Amino acid sequence: MRLSIEEAEKLANKLKFRHEDNTVIAVVQDYKTKEVLSVAFMNREALIKTVTTGYLHLWSTSRKKLWLKGETSGNLQIVVDIKIDCDEDAVLVLVKPMGPMCHTGNFSCFYRRYSEIL
Amino acid sequence: MRLSIEEAEKLANKLKFRHEDNTVIAVVQDYKTKEVLSVAFMNREALIKTVTTGYLHLWSTSRKKLWLKGETSGNLQIVVDIKIDCDEDAVLVLVKPMGPMCHTGNFSCFYRRYSEIL
Repeated sequence: MRLSIEEAEKLANKLKFRHEDNTVIAVVQDYKTKEVLSVAFMNREALIKTVTTGYLHLWSTSRKKLWLKGETSGNLQIVVDIKIDCDEDAVLVLVKPMGPMCHTGNFSCFYRRYSEIL
Repeated sequence: MRLSIEEAEKLANKLKFRHEDNTVIAVVQDYKTKEVLSVAFMNREALIKTVTTGYLHLWSTSRKKLWLKGETSGNLQIVVDIKIDCDEDAVLVLVKPMGPMCHTGNFSCFYRRYSEIL
């Protein structure tokens, strides 16, 4: 998906960036397998970059920095669709991954069952 | 799933409750259809209640209150499995819903495409 800057601004205006560092929560799901790949945050700029470029951008709450997911690894996440939650402070980003989402090399960040960390 | 209080405490000790009000992010997914139903927060108490009772409990950051999901509506969410993310500050809760997750009556909180709110 690719939106014009006007549409992107309009979408951003409808969202409530009320989480950490003025963000919405972004749940990232593989559009095909429906596997949940990650959960992270998007500030207004990350949301606008995501929908205007078609590539997943996030706000890093630890590094206080906007980042293009896969910028260094090459594992870009192509955005296919976005869904909005009932109270407009979270988005579900459906992606077509060009590689693993997780920095560990695993396809999903949720690669362990709870019993594996006990 | 049902854990003993000892196992539940052990699991909680491995997690980093570092989000709003000392929580982990909880992504809730239907274990069968893989539909993402909601994203919310769990503090230590909500996590322990969830894994010891087998029913989804959350921490409401707006009401500053622990709640059993479905307590008033009857739409309890039965927990089937839990996955942990790479940095241990988010969990993916796989549930068998006894009814809609969303307070609007929709099955998922993510019931709208972005284009519907523009």
